[in-house]
Order: sequence, then structure tokens, then C-alpha cells
Amino acid sequence: MTESDCKGKIAIVGSGLIGQSWATIFAGSGYSVTIYDIDSEQVTRALANTKLTLERYEQDGCLRGKLSAHQQSNLICGSNNLKSCLQNALYVQECVPESIEMKKEVFTQLDEYCEEKTIMASSSSCINSSQFTEDLKHRSNMLIAHPVNPPYFLPLVEIIPAPWTDPEITAQTRSLLEEVGQSPITLNKEVPGFALNRIQYAVINECWSLLQSGVLSAADIDKVMYEGLGRRYAFIGPLETMHLNADGIVDYCKRYAEGAYNVSATFTPPPIKYDIPTAELVEKELRQITPTDKANERKQWRDSQFAALDKLKRGSN
Amino acid sequence: MTESDCKGKIAIVGSGLIGQSWATIFAGSGYSVTIYDIDSEQVTRALANTKLTLERYEQDGCLRGKLSAHQQSNLICGSNNLKSCLQNALYVQECVPESIEMKKEVFTQLDEYCEEKTIMASSSSCINSSQFTEDLKHRSNMLIAHPVNPPYFLPLVEIIPAPWTDPEITAQTRSLLEEVGQSPITLNKEVPGFALNRIQYAVINECWSLLQSGVLSAADIDKVMYEGLGRRYAFIGPLETMHLNADGIVDYCKRYAEGAYNVSATFTPPPIKYDIPTAELVEKELRQITPTDKANERKQWRDSQFAALDKLKRGSN
Repeated sequence: MTESDCKGKIAIVGSGLIGQSWATIFAGSGYSVTIYDIDSEQVTRALANTKLTLERYEQDGCLRGKLSAHQQSNLICGSNNLKSCLQNALYVQECVPESIEMKKEVFTQLDEYCEEKTIMASSSSCINSSQFTEDLKHRSNMLIAHPVNPPYFLPLVEIIPAPWTDPEITAQTRSLLEEVGQSPITLNKEVPGFALNRIQYAVINECWSLLQSGVLSAADIDKVMYEGLGRRYAFIGPLETMHLNADGIVDYCKRYAEGAYNVSATFTPPPIKYDIPTAELVEKELRQITPTDKANERKQWRDSQFAALDKLKRGSN
Repeated sequence: MTESDCKGKIAIVGSGLIGQSWATIFAGSGYSVTIYDIDSEQVTRALANTKLTLERYEQDGCLRGKLSAHQQSNLICGSNNLKSCLQNALYVQECVPESIEMKKEVFTQLDEYCEEKTIMASSSSCINSSQFTEDLKHRSNMLIAHPVNPPYFLPLVEIIPAPWTDPEITAQTRSLLEEVGQSPITLNKEVPGFALNRIQYAVINECWSLLQSGVLSAADIDKVMYEGLGRRYAFIGPLETMHLNADGIVDYCKRYAEGAYNVSATFTPPPIKYDIPTAELVEKELRQITPTDKANERKQWRDSQFAALDKLKRGSN
């Protein structure tokens, strides 16, 4: 396969786990991917890892796209020269550690080396891009595209434009991410925590209250999700759940909103501090279920379940 | 199969969908089930429905237990005589409509007809049992066992004892429900909304805020769950998620609790009213995705997905 067969060039800036995941996702759809890192040893390691990962996915029957693992690996190359990595790139996915200083430094360099039309997206999970792109020349091409870990099997991506991001760039980012098999959502404005973490913290807040007031054990709190509510939410969101549990969501609200209001009137008002004494009790309980030396095994089990669910869902839509 | 082969007798009081579900669950483990309803036509219909349902589960490969659908159907009989329904019953699952008056009336009758050791559980989704069992002779045998719809595929059951429920009864209820393949949790005390709805309302509250502040469309809010967070929660609860995303939950709290605190400081304080104007906008959007005349098809799709996930999970643990 020559470069001219490829759909276009994607630059991945940062060669850690998230950068590697993005590389496998774009290669899966036939994009040519260049992974950049300042340290060439890390680049070499990332290339070896993505090759192994794609081969494993192929064996497990969960490789995306029409190309073989071998063909996909051949689409991924590395570089420790940011300028050449960015040359002709249509899209940059930045995946450096979560620090405003690092994001500022990297985006200043991107601003210098990018093409006029290059889209530059940050994988940041909590820093809005207006905090590090304001003074840059190409700031209208810059935005957040926050993946969920592991991105290959949890396809949600939160797109958050800064106030100065060109809406056309936001729309193109969404199309590209849909094209490569992710499930992007678009936030119309910047908010602290974006959407996923806001909802996650809302869940944890209530769980923390239930723990602190001694209503449930940690193990039983987790069960509420993975044996009940979480199984629903794997297929149907909270709003459609309301919609289908009555004759539409308006009917749901007429019938149940007052009850919900009365229940949430008894919530501990936010913000909630996830305090160490409570965390220590939870840790003790969770370590009994999964001892420290089995944590990696448990993570592998978790990821294999995510993969199986993804396969189930992609097969049935 | 004669009655003496059976493990024991379960009385289901109320023959609607939830009563029917409970019947299939208990029959799946070889219990003899009697479905009671005041109206004998309803009983007849419930028996026909459970038979059909069990046959469908058998065809779809998701029938529980070792007995055939035919054998399981034979374990289920009906009655419109509450006294004889309760005779020799070791466990009663009440499934009448959600009204304190009806619960009071039914539990007063149960109190009169039950055996000394019969456990009497209500399927109530929001009324704590202390509101309708206080004055009864056998109140120490009474508690809530709240299922999640559809109970055959979403196995969580919330057990909530009243202050006067005998702890031994609570423990026996938990064992029985585990034995028949459900996943019970035990609340140590009564709280408004129990656990599942408290957490569900915490989620909806934040979704409602995101809607009202114009951050996301309804469709994109739902995606946060079914393409991201909900897929996680189908396998791993919120506390273990924190635990595995760092070197234990104590480490997680040290690293991320401050960030979460700052985000949740920007939450709209509860209670939140699910107002009709917002619901109307959501309904309009959701009806474009699933038109009114396709709602039943969508519900069938949802339930088939729950069944597939349940199969996946039962196969892998």
C-alpha cells in the first residue's frame, strides 16, 4: 500500500496509551498515521505496541475495518520531529499529559508547524481548550476531542469547541470521528468536567452519600449499577429511559417528576468531598473482592467485557 | 413432576407483568409458584403469558435453570383465593399497584392468612414498608424486595427491611433471591427512593441541568451513557471504577477528589424539577429518532439487548 492509497494523514502527538489507541482507530479506517514523541525510544515502543495490539484484535475477532492487522500496522509510522509529523496532516490528536503548561507548550508548537486547514484536537479530559489556545494564530482550528478509556471499545468522544473555534472545524471533527467508528457528541459550550465527568461525579456524589450514611456496603452500591441501572444505560440513555418508561417523556414527567423531586430534596447538596476515611473503608472492602495482586487480571477482564459488549452492540444496530 | 419434588411454594400476589416475571424466575429454580389475583380471568391470562414467555426464552436460548419450559410452566399455577394461595408458602412476593392504600389492604390480608414463618416481600418501587406494615402481627416477616424491569434480565433486587423486620428474614430473603439467580443488595435502612432511583435521579438531575443550560442536545446526552459511561457501568460499579483507575480508591481520591469537588461545586443544587417545557423539547427530539408508532419495536429491541447482555455476563463470570 502506498501513501496515495491512504485517505489522508493523521498526526498523533504523544505516544502513550491514549495516543496508541487513537493510532489504531484511525489506521482501522485506512488513514495514514504518524505518532510523534520527543523521545524516539518511546516512538519505537508505541509502534511495537500498536502492531501487537492490532494483531491481538485480529485474533480476537474485534479488529475494526476492512484492512488486515498487518495492513493497518503498515499505515502507522513514527517521528520525533514535530514539524515533519505535522506536514500535510489533516487532523492532529494531541495526547500529552494533563497539565495546562504542557498543553500550552505543545499547542504553541502546533500553531507554528500546522497547515492552514489542519484541525488540532486535544485529548484533554478536564482542561477546556480556551485555557491554552487563546493567543494562538490558528486557534479557530483548535478544540477538545476527549476519548473514554479504552477508546477502541468505549467509542464516546466529547467534542468541546472553545468560544473561538470555527463551527465548521467542530462539524468536520465530528464527521471524521464518526467515520472512523467513534461516537462523538458536541458540547455547545465549555463547562467544567465536560459531560461525562459531570454525570460520573453526580453518580459518585450520591454513592458517597449512601456510603457515609451507612445505607449500603461498597460492594452493594456497585451492584446497583452493574446488575441494574448500568445494564440499562449500556443501551438506552437516561432521557430515552424516561421516554420509554411512560407514554413519552412529557407523560413521564407528569407522572413521576414530583416523586423524583421529593427524593432529590433529600440529597446531600453538592459539592461532595470524597474523603480519605470513607475511601479507606471502601478500599478495604474492595481489596477483599479483588486483592491487590489480582488488580491487573481484573482490569483485563473488564476490558475483555467492554470488547465483547462493543461487538454485541456493533452487530445489532 | 409432583409437588413433593419441588423446593417449596412461592406465592405471587398480583398477576401483572411484574408478578409474571417473578413467577418465571422462581419456577426457573424449581420452586412451585402460585399466582394470586382477585380476578380469575387475570389469573388465567397470567398463566398463559408465563407459559408463552418461558417457551420463547427456551427458543431464544435464555431460559434459566435446568428444567424445560414445559416443566417450568407446570410449576406455575393460579388461584383467586388468597388464603389457599398462602397456605404452606415459604415466601410471598406482592406485586399490586403502587399505592399505600392497596399495599395496606393486601398486607393486612397477608398478615391474616400467612404461616408463622412465611416471608412477605413487597415489589414496591418507592413506598417503604414501614408505611404499611407497622400495625401488623407478622411485621417482622415483612420487607421490600424491589426488582428492576425486566427482572428476568436485569437481576438487581433492592431489599429494604423496615426497622422491625427480623434481620434473619432479611438474610433469608437475600439467600433465596441469590439462589434463584437474582442479584440482591441490602439497604441497612429505609431511605426515600431506595438506592437505584436515588442514583437514577442524580443522573437525570445533571442531565436536566445540561439540557436547560443548552450544553448538549437530548440525543447527545443519552450517548454519554450508552456509548461511554453506561458501557462501563454494565460491568464495573462507580466505586470499583475509581479503584481500578488509580492505584486503589484512596489513591484515586488523593489525585482526583479535588477536581471532582470543583466540578460538582458548579452543579445546580437539588432538588431539580423535571419541567414540562424542557420535557416537551426532549420529546420532540426523541420522537424524531423513534416515532411514536415505533416505540414498541424500540422497547422490544431494548429488552432483546438486555437479554443478550445478561447471557454475555452469565457466561463470563
